[in-house]
Amino acid sequence: MQFTVDATDGRARACTLVTAHSTVRTPVFMPVGTAAVVKALDTEDLTDRLGAQIVLANTYHLYLRPGDATVAELGGLHGFTGYGRSFLTDSGGFQAFSLSDIARPDDEGILFRSHIDGSSHYFTPAKVLDIQYNLGSDIMMILDDLVALPATRERIALSIDRTTRWAARSIAYHRASQARGIGVDQNIFAIIQGGTDPHFRKISAEALCAMDFDGFAIGGLSVGEANQAMYDTVEFTTPLMPADKPRYLMGVGTPEDLVENIERGVDMFDCVMPTRNARNGTLFTSFGKINIKAAKFKKDESPIDESCDCYTCRRHSRAYLNHLYRARELTYFRLASLHNLHYYFTLMGRAREAILAGKYAAFKRDFYNKRQK
Amino acid sequence: MQFTVDATDGRARACTLVTAHSTVRTPVFMPVGTAAVVKALDTEDLTDRLGAQIVLANTYHLYLRPGDATVAELGGLHGFTGYGRSFLTDSGGFQAFSLSDIARPDDEGILFRSHIDGSSHYFTPAKVLDIQYNLGSDIMMILDDLVALPATRERIALSIDRTTRWAARSIAYHRASQARGIGVDQNIFAIIQGGTDPHFRKISAEALCAMDFDGFAIGGLSVGEANQAMYDTVEFTTPLMPADKPRYLMGVGTPEDLVENIERGVDMFDCVMPTRNARNGTLFTSFGKINIKAAKFKKDESPIDESCDCYTCRRHSRAYLNHLYRARELTYFRLASLHNLHYYFTLMGRAREAILAGKYAAFKRDFYNKRQK
Repeated sequence: MQFTVDATDGRARACTLVTAHSTVRTPVFMPVGTAAVVKALDTEDLTDRLGAQIVLANTYHLYLRPGDATVAELGGLHGFTGYGRSFLTDSGGFQAFSLSDIARPDDEGILFRSHIDGSSHYFTPAKVLDIQYNLGSDIMMILDDLVALPATRERIALSIDRTTRWAARSIAYHRASQARGIGVDQNIFAIIQGGTDPHFRKISAEALCAMDFDGFAIGGLSVGEANQAMYDTVEFTTPLMPADKPRYLMGVGTPEDLVENIERGVDMFDCVMPTRNARNGTLFTSFGKINIKAAKFKKDESPIDESCDCYTCRRHSRAYLNHLYRARELTYFRLASLHNLHYYFTLMGRAREAILAGKYAAFKRDFYNKRQK
Repeated sequence: MQFTVDATDGRARACTLVTAHSTVRTPVFMPVGTAAVVKALDTEDLTDRLGAQIVLANTYHLYLRPGDATVAELGGLHGFTGYGRSFLTDSGGFQAFSLSDIARPDDEGILFRSHIDGSSHYFTPAKVLDIQYNLGSDIMMILDDLVALPATRERIALSIDRTTRWAARSIAYHRASQARGIGVDQNIFAIIQGGTDPHFRKISAEALCAMDFDGFAIGGLSVGEANQAMYDTVEFTTPLMPADKPRYLMGVGTPEDLVENIERGVDMFDCVMPTRNARNGTLFTSFGKINIKAAKFKKDESPIDESCDCYTCRRHSRAYLNHLYRARELTYFRLASLHNLHYYFTLMGRAREAILAGKYAAFKRDFYNKRQK
């Protein structure tokens, strides 16, 4: 992976990341394609109608169905889906932890049961990389030891320590694999943990950033803490991360979260919010969120957002979308998802332009001003 | 409406039908867009990706939600949906009969309860035209008196007689409306009833075809009778219909049904089959139907049909569609619906070419031969 910082504006960065499959300009938002598909959209929606640069797919789900070996036989994620740009895959650890009835971590890995059929599985640092080799993602995330909160400081300290040990195993395993010709074009990112506690964040960041990863993520945020606590943690953590490697804030977030965290030095984001909210009727606009279910939209002939030039806003009225939502028509989900993702991608593109022009502060002020009208 | 018979081949006809919104070449298949949307597809799918010429929308559903007055305020079906080509709307009688807990016909109309909220409504021949004026469809169907089978011959005779009386009221009401400037560009079709009984079909056809309708439909078939009984009834009925007006066989059917009934002189068809089957996993191909759920497709890298050039077959494998279906991904429904409708439209286009070339018999033979391989 080639990585270049094209410009900085304060701590905000505009970077270029070149994988074996595509060039990614940051700040970048990665839509979530859990089962090798962004819900309700197809490959051409992502490329031609949205300009998605990189898609996140979930290792846990694909490992269970259709199985990573099957995906490998079908040409990896790129061949399987027909999406030719970049993929990032998570480690599967978070889903093993959150979707399974039982998830038992020990020093070697995580034992869990499939949420589909109840079968037992064991994820280790090497195992989740083997799966991701089969998936052929451009960026692989390593396994980390997650802790159910609230937890004692002893348990958190163990988690940080275990995550560091697993990271060391992961990078050693990956470099050895590459030496054998496996995963040669695949990049590997570590995940800094430590909740909102500066003490633990510092330990985790320093230990992981000393290792030869291709990039680093900040994990364990956006799990219910106050927004300001998230922003403070990111602000504290990014200076501990190398400037010459990409920085990825996992599972974040709202448009406000993106704007705030770009300012604090984050390059990459992913979140189910734009697509999940779309399906629930919540649509993003330059002036804030609207709920398309609302009766006031029943006869509203204007588009979702007058200033939006997305596929949906160029074709359909709020009234039609309100009707499709109420009639539970499948078509609604696609049109709404196209709009929300277009909103996110456009926001990221404008943030990048602002950074390149040295005008991020003005961009941020304008972003908030429009929402107060 | 301008109507021209471009060519005939035996009884098969290739016609051109010009409405206020578009030119329709027959034989034509109308996809069903119950709630002013063809399930899982959008307007651009219909026009650019499929070339749909005319869409059927359901009066009953749109009357109840969002309400025909609302649709009128939003520019009728064309303005509401953004689909600029032709719409045909049914009378709503069939749905009032089939979706309602109670449906009581009397000499003036049909009393029924909404399947959405249980509210009571009364459809009369004039009322369903008023609704269709609000919807602004290019072709309106008149109300007919449906009978739950089995029924006595007395009840069937009453139904035929009542349908004829309602037809007379409908055409008189419509011509009077047009004289007042309402529905000027809208066409009106009557529906020949009589089940599979030649006696009743003849009475119904002769009575209705003596009136000044813009076209005629054959109703009450594809309701469980044997295929051959349907074909025989159509074969008996089309010679009773005027040659200079379009002939529409309602709610039919399978690809085989289309091929057989075109041969018997039918111009227009509608059916939920291609879209509903798509959603259930049944996909149409030149060699017959396949069920994409089947385990044998899990690693099948070929498209649904090697000879198909639809949006989906040009992009995705059976393996990917099998995965999307099994993972219950929304994207599946659109990709499968695009394929099945493309199959139907292509079949109709080839039937037309065959008729124009005077080679319908060879076309039909080839259609069946491919299925026997």
